[in-house]
Amino acid sequence: MALIVQKYGGTSVGNVERIKNVARRVVGTYKNGNQVVVVLSAMSGETNRLVALAHEASEFPIGREYDLVVSTGEQVTIGLLALALKEMGLKAKSFLGHQVPIVTDSQFGSARIESIDGKNIMKELDAGVIAVVAGFQGVDSEDNITTLGRGGSDTTAVALAAALKADLCEIYTDVEGVYTTDPNICQDARKLKKISYDEMLEMASLGAKVLQTRSVEFARKYNIPVMVRSSFSNADGTLVCKEDKEMEKVVVSGITYNKNEAKISVLRVPDRPGIAAKLFRPLTEAGINVDMIVQNISHDALTDLTFTVANSDYKRALKLVSETAGEIEAQDVKGDPNIAKVSIVGAGMRSHAGIASKTFEVLAGEGINIQMISTSEIKISCVVDEKYTELAVRVLHEAFGLGKEEIEEEKG
Amino acid sequence: MALIVQKYGGTSVGNVERIKNVARRVVGTYKNGNQVVVVLSAMSGETNRLVALAHEASEFPIGREYDLVVSTGEQVTIGLLALALKEMGLKAKSFLGHQVPIVTDSQFGSARIESIDGKNIMKELDAGVIAVVAGFQGVDSEDNITTLGRGGSDTTAVALAAALKADLCEIYTDVEGVYTTDPNICQDARKLKKISYDEMLEMASLGAKVLQTRSVEFARKYNIPVMVRSSFSNADGTLVCKEDKEMEKVVVSGITYNKNEAKISVLRVPDRPGIAAKLFRPLTEAGINVDMIVQNISHDALTDLTFTVANSDYKRALKLVSETAGEIEAQDVKGDPNIAKVSIVGAGMRSHAGIASKTFEVLAGEGINIQMISTSEIKISCVVDEKYTELAVRVLHEAFGLGKEEIEEEKG
Repeated sequence: MALIVQKYGGTSVGNVERIKNVARRVVGTYKNGNQVVVVLSAMSGETNRLVALAHEASEFPIGREYDLVVSTGEQVTIGLLALALKEMGLKAKSFLGHQVPIVTDSQFGSARIESIDGKNIMKELDAGVIAVVAGFQGVDSEDNITTLGRGGSDTTAVALAAALKADLCEIYTDVEGVYTTDPNICQDARKLKKISYDEMLEMASLGAKVLQTRSVEFARKYNIPVMVRSSFSNADGTLVCKEDKEMEKVVVSGITYNKNEAKISVLRVPDRPGIAAKLFRPLTEAGINVDMIVQNISHDALTDLTFTVANSDYKRALKLVSETAGEIEAQDVKGDPNIAKVSIVGAGMRSHAGIASKTFEVLAGEGINIQMISTSEIKISCVVDEKYTELAVRVLHEAFGLGKEEIEEEKG
Repeated sequence: MALIVQKYGGTSVGNVERIKNVARRVVGTYKNGNQVVVVLSAMSGETNRLVALAHEASEFPIGREYDLVVSTGEQVTIGLLALALKEMGLKAKSFLGHQVPIVTDSQFGSARIESIDGKNIMKELDAGVIAVVAGFQGVDSEDNITTLGRGGSDTTAVALAAALKADLCEIYTDVEGVYTTDPNICQDARKLKKISYDEMLEMASLGAKVLQTRSVEFARKYNIPVMVRSSFSNADGTLVCKEDKEMEKVVVSGITYNKNEAKISVLRVPDRPGIAAKLFRPLTEAGINVDMIVQNISHDALTDLTFTVANSDYKRALKLVSETAGEIEAQDVKGDPNIAKVSIVGAGMRSHAGIASKTFEVLAGEGINIQMISTSEIKISCVVDEKYTELAVRVLHEAFGLGKEEIEEEKG
């Protein structure tokens, strides 16, 4: 008997017929002798509807009340699934964040899980009950409802799997797994059988919308195997797990892209210590995440500083930076929302040289100008004009032979 | 400085524009120097949508999970109102049932309030915060979300007013107050300035859909003045309060009717002790409420027993009674769903004779046959053929001079 946490995303619970379909899968897993914890998102479109209502009520709807409104979508789906499971003759019980409890900090809209007490759920599981848990939400120490940010249900699932010492965490979504790149852009894209936590982290944070970054961090930290698969088919998915020998042989695992970023440049700043801190503190205080930061060597004691933020934060960030610009004696601030980040990810890069230069050559060969570069141990990211996104992805996918070869396990 | 509880119903919060309208009213009350607690229903139509989803998921959706689903509507509206109030520069904080807490029993779907701890809300009020509370919901001793049944938000408001020792409870709805009768039937109907708890209880239970019965019971028990008024106008509403001298001068306050009842007669039953108990026990066990019961004196040791039930229970009740009929040796069972109950309500009846005979004369004068009669201290109800409902209401309204005279306070 295994303990399995299954998470179903918005499209998998998009209407009651689909919720019943989920119920049938859950029943199947349960009848195979497993204990099952189900984590659900809101019906697809529902969170957007709630967000729109909040924006109608307030120009900048944030904080406690916003979280209260947007967390209702999951409350509805867990109630409906529990009803459907009971209708099929099983015992089921729903859990809101505060009923588990899933305790978070008080960073409304993007709260972080601090602790999960699995006792209440384990008691039900041991009594043969299927636990149905609301994703995306938690409760802070003052009994306020908090939300984990978009895609937070993945994090709920993996964190629960860790707290309950689950054997497996299955993430059901509307794609069949993790691909070498976006199949909508590149017909040649191939589904991966396995991917390491580190690679998945880079893929996730770079815009492969399969798994939320924080959920992968949790999975890596607690070594929870995560299977990403489709709720609409029985095909095998992609297993996200610890890196093994076989994976190291694969130099590049995938090409990702992210169009949801914007670039802001602060030009000709006096190159003094503390400038960057002054520039970024207001952004941090406003809850704006800065992604890539590039600062070049200075000329005449002046330097340029460029960074990227999410498109949704672009206007606020530009305003804040323009306010700080005078203070730090910058001569100009420029912004560009029409950029994209294209990245090459692979655990094998650690032991293989030349990936960066090959990347630059391939892009140059297509006349694509690289505006910013940033690298990590297993990733190279390039910011390019948004209009080149698809072309860049396709040529890199081909150049690194991602569509042509079978990966090691598939040969064996 | 007064403490005022304001409750806004579904049509008053039917969309975000209307929620902003509610916010403006709340701000007005607050800026007049009052502490304000707002209780909200779900957006009109939302609870029906949630109920329909639950019925899609399960043939008989009841219990814990059903309450979880249908309680989300109020969660959304309180969050939106709190956001709108903050947008207008005020401090506001929403409260779910379990955050107040409003503790109920575990009768899901129709839970009864057991206790309300006002501490959390009072702390916020004393800090200048407007408290926005979800109507219709509570929490049981096991941390399950419960709902109070349809119209439960009125009860939430009055119970909160009692717990907080509020000076006034205002119920905002889509009508301007309590009328002498239904204005749709009788153009002459007049809005009452005041009505006693007892009269309102009779009015509410008889089908004047302005206030939920249980909320009036609460108000009477704790002596909370309740003002019923429209959220769409600034007109004065109707004050539901303790009976005073002036009210006693008004003999009849209103004429109500209820078409949602059906009549069942058990004919020629041997008149022995215990017959009625045998007859009604199966109905009680099936959760069917019996309203009027009439038993006449017996002839030849045989009696007839007639009673009314809600139309929605009619078929089940008829079946149960037919099953019992043989056991108690009744000679026949007859039913009629096409009846209506027309009632005259007035605290002044206590001290005025002749109301009953005048009622019967007026109806007889129009050729309306009275099928059943039942009376209380402040009410006379007559069951008539449903087709005479409007006629009966109009002639009684006129006969008791309800439309013509101004009531005492309006003269003063």
